[in-house]
Amino acid sequence: MADRKHIPDPTLLRMCTYLRVLERHSGPTISSAGIAEAAGVNAAQVRKDLSFFGDFGRPGVGYHVDELTAGVQRAMGLDRERRAVIVGAGALGSALISYPGFQARGFRIAAIFDSNPAKVGHILRSFEVMPMSELANTVASENVTIGIITVPRVGAQDVADTLAEAGVAAIVNFAPITLRVPPHVRLRNVDLTQQLEALAYYLGD
Amino acid sequence: MADRKHIPDPTLLRMCTYLRVLERHSGPTISSAGIAEAAGVNAAQVRKDLSFFGDFGRPGVGYHVDELTAGVQRAMGLDRERRAVIVGAGALGSALISYPGFQARGFRIAAIFDSNPAKVGHILRSFEVMPMSELANTVASENVTIGIITVPRVGAQDVADTLAEAGVAAIVNFAPITLRVPPHVRLRNVDLTQQLEALAYYLGD
Repeated sequence: MADRKHIPDPTLLRMCTYLRVLERHSGPTISSAGIAEAAGVNAAQVRKDLSFFGDFGRPGVGYHVDELTAGVQRAMGLDRERRAVIVGAGALGSALISYPGFQARGFRIAAIFDSNPAKVGHILRSFEVMPMSELANTVASENVTIGIITVPRVGAQDVADTLAEAGVAAIVNFAPITLRVPPHVRLRNVDLTQQLEALAYYLGD
Repeated sequence: MADRKHIPDPTLLRMCTYLRVLERHSGPTISSAGIAEAAGVNAAQVRKDLSFFGDFGRPGVGYHVDELTAGVQRAMGLDRERRAVIVGAGALGSALISYPGFQARGFRIAAIFDSNPAKVGHILRSFEVMPMSELANTVASENVTIGIITVPRVGAQDVADTLAEAGVAAIVNFAPITLRVPPHVRLRNVDLTQQLEALAYYLGD
């Protein structure tokens, strides 16, 4: 939403890591050093990241785990269910339908779509693959806010346009291409090959 | 490798994006503004990122596309084939075996492993799922430098230990857990749920 304060992306990603640390922590309180160690960052970073979202801790006492967890979840918009559609019923789309983390974290896949008539109607892990002509309907009727693009590069911009027109607020793009989206749509690119490429620098000869 | 200069991670990821822009560019030269526009960043950022790796451009002329492409690929360690193994023959591992970007970018999947005897021996997209007992052999004989972890959270640390002992130089971890690896092993975490969580902040009520 336009009225949300901008938070640096690395901070948002680290906040998710902190949430996981909190959920696995046993005991009523935790220090920033404790969060930091489990998350693999330094304590000053933890305090700085948390300060974007509010005033959670008490000097010398640390954080109450339950309070901090609830506060961060609320601040991050993670205190309610979010619905997503997947476009692209290939191997990656199929893997994401059943990705265990999504459901556990409140993200529910509402439906999967494909533009290939040969795939439409097939059952993929209990989801019937839907034609693109149904996308706008589903987004509206199921209150879908996230579109996940798992089509090849060639079709990705068309899919992004269709998702934006259908009214999703955010797109997660797995296709290796720079997409253009309207300013009110948040875009995240997840390029799995890039993750390997960024490692190659350190692999030596 | 320990003797590689540290480059900020966002720079490494953007460099991969620039490479894609260069590959799709038609014409012998390109300006930093041209790269920037196609990559969705600003031109000063492009020049700063490239300066980590060498002195590529000429003022007023811009960059020779072929020279810059070859120079960046060499500097990034992307001028040769890299071999990877996948551990975890579930839906995500299965999707990654055939992920089209890997092969196209010089990353070759050498084999896929699973600790579940019921999965070993099955054929997954032309790969026979191998037992974990074969992992060290394969890493050594196939010159594997990258291990990709697609097992659930519970088994991920054991897999990371096994990969590190087997001698991989880098690990890409898809399990939603903070892994510990020896200092000589580079670790990248790809948490797909985190990508959705970082968006939730902007999704509103």
